[in-house]
Amino acid sequence: MDTQFKMTANPCTQEIITTCVFNAPRQMVFTAFTEPIIIERWWGPRSLITSVDTFDPYPGGSWRYIQRDARGNEYSFRGVFHDIQSPERIVQTFEYEGTPGHVLLDTIVFEEIAGGTLVRDQSVFQSVADRDAMLAENMEAGASESMERLAEILASMMRAPR
Amino acid sequence: MDTQFKMTANPCTQEIITTCVFNAPRQMVFTAFTEPIIIERWWGPRSLITSVDTFDPYPGGSWRYIQRDARGNEYSFRGVFHDIQSPERIVQTFEYEGTPGHVLLDTIVFEEIAGGTLVRDQSVFQSVADRDAMLAENMEAGASESMERLAEILASMMRAPR
Repeated sequence: MDTQFKMTANPCTQEIITTCVFNAPRQMVFTAFTEPIIIERWWGPRSLITSVDTFDPYPGGSWRYIQRDARGNEYSFRGVFHDIQSPERIVQTFEYEGTPGHVLLDTIVFEEIAGGTLVRDQSVFQSVADRDAMLAENMEAGASESMERLAEILASMMRAPR
Repeated sequence: MDTQFKMTANPCTQEIITTCVFNAPRQMVFTAFTEPIIIERWWGPRSLITSVDTFDPYPGGSWRYIQRDARGNEYSFRGVFHDIQSPERIVQTFEYEGTPGHVLLDTIVFEEIAGGTLVRDQSVFQSVADRDAMLAENMEAGASESMERLAEILASMMRAPR
């Protein structure tokens, strides 16, 4: 499924920008980002099971996801919501608990375009080194796979009777 | 009072780093950053009255400050705490409500040094334009004045019987 996934990490910045297009209405895409049952079905690579441990979608609310692999290893992520404005925008912090103290600021914007929704996700890091460390962890492949999974779920939501 | 205040905004970044030295123990400096009654006495320039409207110092807690000038104009600021680890570190978001949607990630580190405490405050902006807009608002003078006020309060805390 082509999501027109694109990731940009310009040298002279401490950020990563990903954009992605979905053939689904903006409200539906926003719901897929803010409904734990749906998040668990697309967040992260297919090889891991993601569980939403905490998800309080309001300013000051917290979120926490736990990923488990087939051998039982766990990888946890957490953050807080600065803003969550349906269906337009989410501003949140993000930290991988395996590297505590390395925090990023994530701004996700949902834009209506002809035939669907453009999602633009900007991650601003505390340093270029932090940014580049995340890129070195094969983040692009992981993010691209998540977006593919999300596109599949949105396609099935579009087919479902409403 | 010399606080060795220094502000850095390198062209090839989207951040501002300020450092400041106080002749006070780290725990006392940390308290001055996390006790609303003390914050109101140093946060911002002397020409404005700052009130702490909200202050919940734990991960996911919110903060909000209101500044008033002599003519009754109000300027409000808000954010959420991602982390607050006494007496070492605060990670929080920051937004001036007058320019909603422009958020920054603030990391404040308190380091023990000979004779006092070094405070290093890193603000990472969503864009270089946001960073430069804040610099254009005479932020350096404002921050320097806040640090002077804080040094004065710490000096009086040091003199108080404990």
